[in-house]
Amino acid sequence: MASENFYDVTCYHAGNPYEDIGSVINSIIADIKSRQTVPDLNGGGKPGAVIYIPPGDYRLVTQVVIDVSYLKIAGSGHGFTSSSIRFNTPADELAQWREVWPGGSRIRVDISPEATDGEAAGAAFYVKRTGNPRISSVEFADFCIDGLHFIDDGSGQNDAENTYKNGKTGIYVGSANDSFRITGMGLIYLEHGVTVHDADALAIDNNFIAECGNCIELKGMGQASRIANNFVGAGYRGHSIYAENYGGILVSSNNVFPRGASSIYFSGVVRSSITGNRFHSFYPGMLVFAANSCENLVSSNHFLRDREPWAPMQKYDNGLDDLFGLLHIDGSNNSFIANHISETIDTQYIKPLGVKPVIVHVVAGNGNYIANNHIVATTEMSHINDAANSACFSTQVGALLSTNNLKTLEVTAVLVQRGSVRNTVLDSGSDDQVEMDRTMNAFRGTPVPRQ
Amino acid sequence: MASENFYDVTCYHAGNPYEDIGSVINSIIADIKSRQTVPDLNGGGKPGAVIYIPPGDYRLVTQVVIDVSYLKIAGSGHGFTSSSIRFNTPADELAQWREVWPGGSRIRVDISPEATDGEAAGAAFYVKRTGNPRISSVEFADFCIDGLHFIDDGSGQNDAENTYKNGKTGIYVGSANDSFRITGMGLIYLEHGVTVHDADALAIDNNFIAECGNCIELKGMGQASRIANNFVGAGYRGHSIYAENYGGILVSSNNVFPRGASSIYFSGVVRSSITGNRFHSFYPGMLVFAANSCENLVSSNHFLRDREPWAPMQKYDNGLDDLFGLLHIDGSNNSFIANHISETIDTQYIKPLGVKPVIVHVVAGNGNYIANNHIVATTEMSHINDAANSACFSTQVGALLSTNNLKTLEVTAVLVQRGSVRNTVLDSGSDDQVEMDRTMNAFRGTPVPRQ
Amino acid sequence: MASENFYDVTCYHAGNPYEDIGSVINSIIADIKSRQTVPDLNGGGKPGAVIYIPPGDYRLVTQVVIDVSYLKIAGSGHGFTSSSIRFNTPADELAQWREVWPGGSRIRVDISPEATDGEAAGAAFYVKRTGNPRISSVEFADFCIDGLHFIDDGSGQNDAENTYKNGKTGIYVGSANDSFRITGMGLIYLEHGVTVHDADALAIDNNFIAECGNCIELKGMGQASRIANNFVGAGYRGHSIYAENYGGILVSSNNVFPRGASSIYFSGVVRSSITGNRFHSFYPGMLVFAANSCENLVSSNHFLRDREPWAPMQKYDNGLDDLFGLLHIDGSNNSFIANHISETIDTQYIKPLGVKPVIVHVVAGNGNYIANNHIVATTEMSHINDAANSACFSTQVGALLSTNNLKTLEVTAVLVQRGSVRNTVLDSGSDDQVEMDRTMNAFRGTPVPRQ
Repeated sequence: MASENFYDVTCYHAGNPYEDIGSVINSIIADIKSRQTVPDLNGGGKPGAVIYIPPGDYRLVTQVVIDVSYLKIAGSGHGFTSSSIRFNTPADELAQWREVWPGGSRIRVDISPEATDGEAAGAAFYVKRTGNPRISSVEFADFCIDGLHFIDDGSGQNDAENTYKNGKTGIYVGSANDSFRITGMGLIYLEHGVTVHDADALAIDNNFIAECGNCIELKGMGQASRIANNFVGAGYRGHSIYAENYGGILVSSNNVFPRGASSIYFSGVVRSSITGNRFHSFYPGMLVFAANSCENLVSSNHFLRDREPWAPMQKYDNGLDDLFGLLHIDGSNNSFIANHISETIDTQYIKPLGVKPVIVHVVAGNGNYIANNHIVATTEMSHINDAANSACFSTQVGALLSTNNLKTLEVTAVLVQRGSVRNTVLDSGSDDQVEMDRTMNAFRGTPVPRQ
Repeated sequence: MASENFYDVTCYHAGNPYEDIGSVINSIIADIKSRQTVPDLNGGGKPGAVIYIPPGDYRLVTQVVIDVSYLKIAGSGHGFTSSSIRFNTPADELAQWREVWPGGSRIRVDISPEATDGEAAGAAFYVKRTGNPRISSVEFADFCIDGLHFIDDGSGQNDAENTYKNGKTGIYVGSANDSFRITGMGLIYLEHGVTVHDADALAIDNNFIAECGNCIELKGMGQASRIANNFVGAGYRGHSIYAENYGGILVSSNNVFPRGASSIYFSGVVRSSITGNRFHSFYPGMLVFAANSCENLVSSNHFLRDREPWAPMQKYDNGLDDLFGLLHIDGSNNSFIANHISETIDTQYIKPLGVKPVIVHVVAGNGNYIANNHIVATTEMSHINDAANSACFSTQVGALLSTNNLKTLEVTAVLVQRGSVRNTVLDSGSDDQVEMDRTMNAFRGTPVPRQ
Repeated sequence: MASENFYDVTCYHAGNPYEDIGSVINSIIADIKSRQTVPDLNGGGKPGAVIYIPPGDYRLVTQVVIDVSYLKIAGSGHGFTSSSIRFNTPADELAQWREVWPGGSRIRVDISPEATDGEAAGAAFYVKRTGNPRISSVEFADFCIDGLHFIDDGSGQNDAENTYKNGKTGIYVGSANDSFRITGMGLIYLEHGVTVHDADALAIDNNFIAECGNCIELKGMGQASRIANNFVGAGYRGHSIYAENYGGILVSSNNVFPRGASSIYFSGVVRSSITGNRFHSFYPGMLVFAANSCENLVSSNHFLRDREPWAPMQKYDNGLDDLFGLLHIDGSNNSFIANHISETIDTQYIKPLGVKPVIVHVVAGNGNYIANNHIVATTEMSHINDAANSACFSTQVGALLSTNNLKTLEVTAVLVQRGSVRNTVLDSGSDDQVEMDRTMNAFRGTPVPRQ
């Protein structure tokens, strides 16, 4: 390339990207800033640059700090593989494995943050800039950020690689920002995948963010952003998709797989959409609206909750019981329309034993509209799973495909707590599956066969 | 690169891309045509080429004219930033700004079309080819087209940068075409962002097209195209997404923000889908079906209309009053299912004063099916906004998050004009919120609490 | 590029990519394997590589065999054009054509598999690896695979280029795999476009896969995959999107055009989603659920069935009659919610003549939930189409836009076969349009005007 705004980390004159790509990228950013100094020069002046990371294993010891707009960091491979299966496979089997680490354009995050330093300190990529305008159009594309290992959590379980804790974050955006893009990335074995504060028109699309403690977290306050077409799956402690105090988010067409203490958690989020996603969870509380989340639309989603089929993870869960609600709502004027919800669980695993699980639980709020949701609740016959840990794929798919010989499970389809009024529940459960004060809320039960 | 079909504008021997990238790209296209002359040579012959634009500020004085198939023009950065905020920020504040222009791989459109020359004359990229086959698979990806400034519109407002007028178009496709792709682009401060005539299987995906007079316009006639996952937001005069005489369009998962005289405008469009979008508008008429648009599906969308909170734009609107309908329908056999519609406005701003705003307005047409839409209408308490103009983000988010203490606003949820028959309205408003001839149309009101 | 993990096929020292790109890529893969030999070396070891294919016509004589993870093969142009129109255009017209072949980064598949060798033998790209772990993160992006010609099928029609048969497959994945990506590709004139066995977290996004015998086929068993934002259209013999024994698939925002014996065919698929797609077909059976497909969600889709308007293809169909069902369901506990379904056909073409076409046909299964679907059935006045074959575009769009002066066609909106119980049909057809045993199934008819 003739342009000085195209950098290849393997060609840059300063530093060794295989030893510390963080230091190399920081040098490049310093170079950009030293060359692009004038805000307005012939109608331009600070166009930014692209930093290319070819496929390879790059150690990151020094945190990358980004404070220039229009910086794109791009690789040629998201490089995901399951480290979780690898770390739960016996050493003798592993000795035969063809490869054991993620790959592609892969950053090995080898920083050692102190727990007391806060999330930002453990970030591989830290974006922060003060002053005006907000930092704009930083892009991350098509590379891999690998946190390498989880660490012991002091629980005495002696199961370090399954703790989802290591103090590391893939991408941490700490200041108000506009028109960022995070696309095509692979993030793995990080306590936090992507954490963005105060976003405007942020796009998080087509990424693979899995086997992270938490996957996508929108914090502070923000608006008009999109989380679409991602594969996402957090650990049992964390959130797959989390947002707080945002408006106008669009969460669409994501395939969110277990585990995840929640598949999606909104706190004080308003006027946002959750549409056309596929959510799969092993625990109650797969969707939570907290702190008066209002005027949101949840439609055309597929929710599936069953029990963890894979032995190494069966001892963990998110601590919630089946009365919490598969969808747990604190908020008003939301819409839940045209969703399919499947719950299948052997009755011996229902907590507390013997209760009827609650599917949609409105714990507080008025004016919610819950219509045309199809709830399929069944008991599955659980088998002792004696498959090898490395057979995670066949174990999971086998469980998923087991829809024969299921028996109906009695559930509370919709439960609206007392004090909530003007909610409307239509065609989302029969008369005896819905519990609420029908003098204060409106109801039409799903018809049942005349017979 | 060894391939002669890969061009980097900063390496090409003819012209200076920083002075006039249009002239350089035209030279490259001439070179492609001089090298690829035989339609069928050993089973190939005219594979086209890719032209790469590294990050940088490139002036475009000469219009690019594209008449070869399989040409891809690609950059490494969409480079969006808000020029609207910048141009409404006082000079003394601006003096402190870190950057003031968009960036990335940025084309500064510096052509000066005469108003009488028509839209094509003002296009930075003009695609046109006669003869057969239709020009195919031209691709625009990951760069920025910046119209720089708007100009005075003669209205006497002395507010040139807020007029959304400058006679410039980003990409103008003037002849029938097949399998084009426009992805990852940033388009800003153009009177027209993307205008495509006679498209077949066009993809407009993952772009950032905002602060343009009009954003996406499909003209002529066409079919089977997709507008998905874009951030879009036109000016108060224009359309965010417009189509005429098309069939089989899929408009999905877009986040369409204000302003936009309409968020989406279909004229004579049939058998198309608008699903899973988030639409936000400051005016009535946010969705318009005109000229007998038929058999379209509008489902799982989130519509929000509130009042412009940002001082510099509060003097502008699209001229429509609240009886026009937030969704305004002239057409038959359309489906409106499972949408959430929020309208929140201080009663003092309702036009004409004192009327009940109309949400869904069927002005003409038969056989429409309007079911399971949740309409939330509230009055907001408007405050004097004394924030600085540069505080656009906090002003907007603050307004968006204000869902507490809202009071119910009386609206006409659905209004079907006389003469329209066989329309069906189900669960989209209570008995007294829906106005239509119930002898000629079918109705079931949303149940209300028994009390 | 300084990195040895970046390869450009036009720069590689072995072989001639224009003569046989297969041989060149296989040499590159051998080179990667010879350099990356240690599974765990300083926390890495086998990051893979990227192979770049600049725009050009590349003949492929030798099948590419991929058995390394983290290999990305990428071009700069999907290069689709309609070969179907080209091969149905008279030679004298063709002589004037500006180009006749697809382009971009284009692979001309020139292998000659024996029919007895099976599908894998005819694949341009064959991915297969035994042992553990599953091969991961192989990516195909932004290039074209062209099967060149179809061949005579022995039917005596003497219409070789319209048979959709040639024994060729674009991408064939034969062993269990994880986190693969196929994006931005153009696949054309292949008997099978993409066939993937045993996928986990596979992404097939934003591709153009058309004029293939079959387009996307998921085989074996698998889970948690996504097929989104594609343009797809198979031949009259094959499937546009096919899956068997998968769980947790998300099929969203695709624009699936004719022909395709089916637009989407699920066999034993469970807990999957089909949302926000646009489907267009010329035959019954456009969506088929076979072999007890359960707990799937079909929502917010637009279905259109009309008659083939283009003369060269009017003699072909998929052999099904109008009693088969436009949507044909064998399975339980599925959800069909909020879809728009248009069928428009001249009564003379209904098969068997005089019957009422069936729209949604539940042939077996219990507990399905069919709610809020809007079915628009009309008779169109068919005209003699005397347009030239090359005028395919205007013929198709003209047909699509013909929504005026349509008359209502009597159909069976929903037919549930005897023996199926606990199905629920709500607001998807009036009382006299729905046929089922109403003592064993639940029903609420779409209201009709009181008059």
